[in-house]
Amino acid sequence: MHTNTCYGRIDNDLLTRLSSIKLVAFDVDGTITDGGIYYDNHDFEMKRFNCKDGFGVVALFNEGIETAVITGRNAPLTERRMRDLKVKHIMQGQSNKAESLKALCNKLNITPDEAVCFGDDLNDMPMFRIAGFVACPKDAHPFVKNYADYVTTLEGGKGALRELCDLILIAKNVLNADGGYIDERY
Amino acid sequence: MHTNTCYGRIDNDLLTRLSSIKLVAFDVDGTITDGGIYYDNHDFEMKRFNCKDGFGVVALFNEGIETAVITGRNAPLTERRMRDLKVKHIMQGQSNKAESLKALCNKLNITPDEAVCFGDDLNDMPMFRIAGFVACPKDAHPFVKNYADYVTTLEGGKGALRELCDLILIAKNVLNADGGYIDERY
Amino acid sequence: MHTNTCYGRIDNDLLTRLSSIKLVAFDVDGTITDGGIYYDNHDFEMKRFNCKDGFGVVALFNEGIETAVITGRNAPLTERRMRDLKVKHIMQGQSNKAESLKALCNKLNITPDEAVCFGDDLNDMPMFRIAGFVACPKDAHPFVKNYADYVTTLEGGKGALRELCDLILIAKNVLNADGGYIDERY
Amino acid sequence: MHTNTCYGRIDNDLLTRLSSIKLVAFDVDGTITDGGIYYDNHDFEMKRFNCKDGFGVVALFNEGIETAVITGRNAPLTERRMRDLKVKHIMQGQSNKAESLKALCNKLNITPDEAVCFGDDLNDMPMFRIAGFVACPKDAHPFVKNYADYVTTLEGGKGALRELCDLILIAKNVLNADGGYIDERY
Repeated sequence: MHTNTCYGRIDNDLLTRLSSIKLVAFDVDGTITDGGIYYDNHDFEMKRFNCKDGFGVVALFNEGIETAVITGRNAPLTERRMRDLKVKHIMQGQSNKAESLKALCNKLNITPDEAVCFGDDLNDMPMFRIAGFVACPKDAHPFVKNYADYVTTLEGGKGALRELCDLILIAKNVLNADGGYIDERY
Repeated sequence: MHTNTCYGRIDNDLLTRLSSIKLVAFDVDGTITDGGIYYDNHDFEMKRFNCKDGFGVVALFNEGIETAVITGRNAPLTERRMRDLKVKHIMQGQSNKAESLKALCNKLNITPDEAVCFGDDLNDMPMFRIAGFVACPKDAHPFVKNYADYVTTLEGGKGALRELCDLILIAKNVLNADGGYIDERY
Repeated sequence: MHTNTCYGRIDNDLLTRLSSIKLVAFDVDGTITDGGIYYDNHDFEMKRFNCKDGFGVVALFNEGIETAVITGRNAPLTERRMRDLKVKHIMQGQSNKAESLKALCNKLNITPDEAVCFGDDLNDMPMFRIAGFVACPKDAHPFVKNYADYVTTLEGGKGALRELCDLILIAKNVLNADGGYIDERY
Repeated sequence: MHTNTCYGRIDNDLLTRLSSIKLVAFDVDGTITDGGIYYDNHDFEMKRFNCKDGFGVVALFNEGIETAVITGRNAPLTERRMRDLKVKHIMQGQSNKAESLKALCNKLNITPDEAVCFGDDLNDMPMFRIAGFVACPKDAHPFVKNYADYVTTLEGGKGALRELCDLILIAKNVLNADGGYIDERY
């Protein structure tokens, strides 16, 4: 059985699994960015985030769903953007993302099975293997795409995370299947 | 009945509605940009605007059509770009875009029915619900695309606003249907 | 009659017209960039040029073909990039590009008929109307695309100018139809 | 005979040739970037690298495969990024890339036949003509695409180099054909 959502036909089984999710943990580069690492000739470093992703992450916060960023790299700009989006758990420089996810779940008193993980490359696999639900952007590494429960129709940094947030909120009856709020707050 | 324009076949009814428009109010992120929020490790923030959009906005100004930017975020760079384009009404940090639009219409002594609103996400819905005409970019949020009177063939920040400006000027007999000026000023 | 080039089948008539060209004059925004105008919250402005375009412009210089940039805007970064590429004639802040082209042709003791003009929007039309050959990028304004003698298969800032340079050098028997040098210098 | 890999069907002959490779030498602009040269109005210069490419280059290092960057331009930012990725041989400002490759091979006590070269434009041809294996991105110059042993399915700066790294590691039995590690280290 399927539901026709604004992102296409989605298995009801997937929506059921998303409906009980308590934490959304995501990677940075290639996941909430287009994978671009911008350098100048001095120490300048830049990333490109996306406004629609931002809307989705704040929407999760508004519903009391925990959000976390778990990344192998380490950049102050990531913290800066995450604060804009009210992401409470900012875990950078993580060499083993499974350990990071476990530690966070312990702290939140939930199990990894109640977490959705969203990433795009092989170093996300350890957290994927213990997560309750795995999603990745359309342009993720092929091994990851093959492993994921759900591949977004949008690319990393171009709304992929928003799509995941919307599907979670559809599953939780916050949004209608067309992506609008059930309570018509907008 | 349709008109064959340089952006494809357009309903004559849409063109008739655009012909009496007095104000074009648009959003910023994802609408006149590609949705990218560029951050560095300090306090640097950047957006990417588009030269073809700029040409269209100045063209509206030249015909005496009012233009306004109504955005939820707040960035000096937006004001800087809007001044380049002779946009008179710059409304940033707006939490309720319907109220912003109403206040502006009052000031201009027009009704919201005489306004075209152009945006890409759910927080544009309040102004959409009272506007005379609603348009959005090809890559807008699906709920917005479904609601809009017109979805541009181009993406946000890649000429979507220019397409809307051109259609308005075609409707007002300033441009021919092929996108060139009737008075051949170029 | 056609020639099969590395950019597809090209009319021999077009190649014949390109073979006697002495000047290539091009626009900046949307033509040798992707149309992006990058702003920060202070006075920072950035554009994105393309390495393949750069190779093509230097290749024209190496064959003694004059190159010029004619743009309505005014940015020191354009001059900086043009110097990298050995572009001798840098004409910024030009409100009437036809006059600019005529003045340059006078100075070079050639006629506008011996010039190729490459641009993407309506303000390039005046120079287009007097040029010997008109080309534009795949993502040019539809009115310009309809007017041009040749629309490149590539987009502005993504190799469109290189494609034009290659076709000129193919027409002049500097490159083979496959895009490689006849004298195998590479 | 073919192998079905995560990048599509690959000739076994190509994989055999890649299996004995000892050095991967690559170009910068358009190869590990999208070809963008970003300039501001002062002396600022920026390039956009890709996180997935970075993962692949470090993966080669981890297997003891030599990596080198050989580029005609000269930018401190390239050295900065290459150091992140543990690239030992950084050769910038090279006017003859064949000589650069030969000198490096001498130093490493290997032959150019044991090198894979990866580039996108005509100035890479000299090193291509002596290399054991030639690859280029999907959006390379058409002459280069026609010459290469393998054209990646991905564009420059969007994972093209990662694709090449993965295929080498598949050929060397470090990765499975699906792009995951045989030893399941992730």
